[in-house]
Amino acid sequence: MFPKNTWYVACASDELDSKPLGRRICNESMVFYRDGEGKVAALEDFCPHRGAPLSLGYVEDGLLVCGYHGLKMNCEGKADSMPGQNVKNFSCIRQFPAHERYGFIWVWPGAAGKADIATIPHLEWAESPDWAYGGGLYHIQCDYRLMVDNLMDLTHETYVHASSIGQKEIDEAPVDTRVEGESVVTSRFMENIMAPPFWQMALEANDLASDVPVDRWQICRFTPPSHVMIEVGVAHAGHGGYDADHKHKASSVVVDFITPETDTSIWYFWGMARDFKPGDAELTASIREGQGKIFAEDQEMLERQQQNLLAWPERRLMKLNIDAGGQQSRRIINKLIKAENIE
Amino acid sequence: MFPKNTWYVACASDELDSKPLGRRICNESMVFYRDGEGKVAALEDFCPHRGAPLSLGYVEDGLLVCGYHGLKMNCEGKADSMPGQNVKNFSCIRQFPAHERYGFIWVWPGAAGKADIATIPHLEWAESPDWAYGGGLYHIQCDYRLMVDNLMDLTHETYVHASSIGQKEIDEAPVDTRVEGESVVTSRFMENIMAPPFWQMALEANDLASDVPVDRWQICRFTPPSHVMIEVGVAHAGHGGYDADHKHKASSVVVDFITPETDTSIWYFWGMARDFKPGDAELTASIREGQGKIFAEDQEMLERQQQNLLAWPERRLMKLNIDAGGQQSRRIINKLIKAENIE
Amino acid sequence: MFPKNTWYVACASDELDSKPLGRRICNESMVFYRDGEGKVAALEDFCPHRGAPLSLGYVEDGLLVCGYHGLKMNCEGKADSMPGQNVKNFSCIRQFPAHERYGFIWVWPGAAGKADIATIPHLEWAESPDWAYGGGLYHIQCDYRLMVDNLMDLTHETYVHASSIGQKEIDEAPVDTRVEGESVVTSRFMENIMAPPFWQMALEANDLASDVPVDRWQICRFTPPSHVMIEVGVAHAGHGGYDADHKHKASSVVVDFITPETDTSIWYFWGMARDFKPGDAELTASIREGQGKIFAEDQEMLERQQQNLLAWPERRLMKLNIDAGGQQSRRIINKLIKAENIE
Repeated sequence: MFPKNTWYVACASDELDSKPLGRRICNESMVFYRDGEGKVAALEDFCPHRGAPLSLGYVEDGLLVCGYHGLKMNCEGKADSMPGQNVKNFSCIRQFPAHERYGFIWVWPGAAGKADIATIPHLEWAESPDWAYGGGLYHIQCDYRLMVDNLMDLTHETYVHASSIGQKEIDEAPVDTRVEGESVVTSRFMENIMAPPFWQMALEANDLASDVPVDRWQICRFTPPSHVMIEVGVAHAGHGGYDADHKHKASSVVVDFITPETDTSIWYFWGMARDFKPGDAELTASIREGQGKIFAEDQEMLERQQQNLLAWPERRLMKLNIDAGGQQSRRIINKLIKAENIE
Repeated sequence: MFPKNTWYVACASDELDSKPLGRRICNESMVFYRDGEGKVAALEDFCPHRGAPLSLGYVEDGLLVCGYHGLKMNCEGKADSMPGQNVKNFSCIRQFPAHERYGFIWVWPGAAGKADIATIPHLEWAESPDWAYGGGLYHIQCDYRLMVDNLMDLTHETYVHASSIGQKEIDEAPVDTRVEGESVVTSRFMENIMAPPFWQMALEANDLASDVPVDRWQICRFTPPSHVMIEVGVAHAGHGGYDADHKHKASSVVVDFITPETDTSIWYFWGMARDFKPGDAELTASIREGQGKIFAEDQEMLERQQQNLLAWPERRLMKLNIDAGGQQSRRIINKLIKAENIE
Repeated sequence: MFPKNTWYVACASDELDSKPLGRRICNESMVFYRDGEGKVAALEDFCPHRGAPLSLGYVEDGLLVCGYHGLKMNCEGKADSMPGQNVKNFSCIRQFPAHERYGFIWVWPGAAGKADIATIPHLEWAESPDWAYGGGLYHIQCDYRLMVDNLMDLTHETYVHASSIGQKEIDEAPVDTRVEGESVVTSRFMENIMAPPFWQMALEANDLASDVPVDRWQICRFTPPSHVMIEVGVAHAGHGGYDADHKHKASSVVVDFITPETDTSIWYFWGMARDFKPGDAELTASIREGQGKIFAEDQEMLERQQQNLLAWPERRLMKLNIDAGGQQSRRIINKLIKAENIE
């Protein structure tokens, strides 16, 4: 159960080189490739000739060539040619609207006629030279909504990420959740605390003392279908916290694109965008490595939680105040699914 | 299909340290842990908050803390506390009666109200300083009754364990099976034979000649739900066999606790208790290693037999005299299951 | 869905030494073994006593001994004896007609009464001293008919085997398909082309120039149930091609026995028989290694094609002229299956 008339991240731009890439998105087997000019196309990963996966083929003259018997497919899912054959009446395959932007390939698994690239979310940090970005991809065996819950309730940092970004003060800080149209925002502010190890590192990387009290914030924003951007940071205490001047703080945006593969598995694109020292590639790599380790800690918990939910399908989960972010996000997701079913 | 209102071995005492242990027993996902005083508790491995497995958490102040969002569970399956929450109306989870005795954690997967620790079987060898015990755990993909059959018909030693404890004289010796209340006893006595390799080793460890004729015995005793204790040994021939004086024999008890995990998999706790040289830790380790190798020889046979039975579900197996031990054990098991269903 | 009243290759002769071999053929679990004189027998891999797989046992005095409790089975599936037991009324297991010929064990998974060893196909190359043979076995997760399709349409060589036997001229050459009784023959002739790498090697091994134009042929012959023999070769151009004298050509027979394991998996016996330098064992080994690498290239394609067909069961595949060989072969297979169902 996921909205289909919407844009999902299918892969990072640098995952797609000159070879086609097969990937299942929202239960659809897709093949992604670049034509001669580098433009991206997405098709069903199924050759109409004998059912071979087109992702095992190659690209020639901007066409996707089936690696079994050489059928050449154009980016609209129509056979262009095949040695010794007249392809005029060949069956077509489905084309999925796809578009490359911000370093990602976006795909629309639903009704192609409704796709509008203007609705790809705007990502300021991906365009501005003031920002740097590093990230990665995890393949996790859980319902995408469990990952939304996870990211919209950061109390789990205290437990799952105790040695890096977790700290006792997170659960002690009150959480505020509000719905803004189709977005959900959950925020937490902690004042006058000591920074946990990850943020000490970030302060130091930002040439700031790491052994003094700070104000810390976490502002999680869900937007459909399943993106969660989290503004996070610390500022030396007493300088205005979230609103402090750049010279007093280290802050960044945790980027999470959660793309359903099947009903119980996801492609999880995680990363961090920061607006300090954007040109420092070594820092980018170091943050990326640290984040990768931290975010890997969630995998076992989410997969085992998923197994438990499958084993006890009749059990109702609790909905506490800390779960409001995930809960409101699910309401928006459900509304979108319902609207698609009526259409 | 297994009796549930009974005690099963869930784990060995030394498997359960300060961390919780998740284990499926009789199709129930359980988490075992020790409270502050070392007392053992068993609960459903499911946090009522969001379904996370509690076995991924930790113990603090005698409470089991969920590793996802910090719910603290007491040993009765009731939430004790959670940061920032009033847990009064939280859902409870099921508590399973559990008790530590004889170096094992025992669990009662059925109706808690019927559990009585007085019905944990008495194990003389586990308490007396005259005995030593060593054992291990195997995870095997077969119905627990196939392992009961295996242990109640030791003719298989001649074939499966040909190089260690098997010998031709086993299938030549007549087998006697009798039912004693809820126990089944199958016995075999072989007179004036040469000891097989394992028993030669045991004679030598016991300072007895190993190259002279011996009398050998095997007395298998099934008790519900699925425990099989086997008195085994050899005595120098002509000294009374099973009843011979200690100075003429090497004897021990093969210990088998067979705990169903699912309908077609088991936790198999095997070991050997001996009443000679109980203080010799090196001998304990050496016997344990030898037994471990021998008992590993059954695994492939049992798993492949299980696969065959699943592939040919309509085939009736034969019930020969050598199968009477397993057959009578199954009758007792079936009677217990039937009685539980009537209750 | 496969014909059952027919001979399939079960294993190569050298796979079956003194130990029994368990193998599933046409959804039947079989055990193959040699009796005292080396004669081959095939039985259900199921001991009537307790369901253990007989393939875990051993052969003694020409009888197959169950490795669990020692039941001795004769080659007709009747118990011969068992220690301490009267086997007269023991259940029998099914015997499958089996016969060793041409370096393979052939088995008849259908009605035993209809089996006739005279219908094992005649293989000239396997008997004549003028020929040498080398081959191997692959276990592939696909319907056997997908492999028949593969071998009856060699246009795939251009794509799947581009670096060895494929060349552009294959799909440019017209293909001819004809049905001859229960056989299907698909042939292609290419004139005055340069030999691809594999054939350059073969020309050189045959002491012929490899850098001159050649005529190349591929004559694929399907015979039931699922054997495909392919006459392949190149001759120096202008000497008569397929009909050229031996001194101008390098030719061989690609041998493919495709034995269904289940509905979606096969035992694929591949090999090459050649009628030049038959005594050169090093050449045999080198060709076998080369062919093994080339034929391994098909595996991923066939398995992924199978997965696609299972995922899109409602899609009809296309039937082009190049698919006629596979198509006609399927018609013959279907006719045989239908005939068996009427019988």
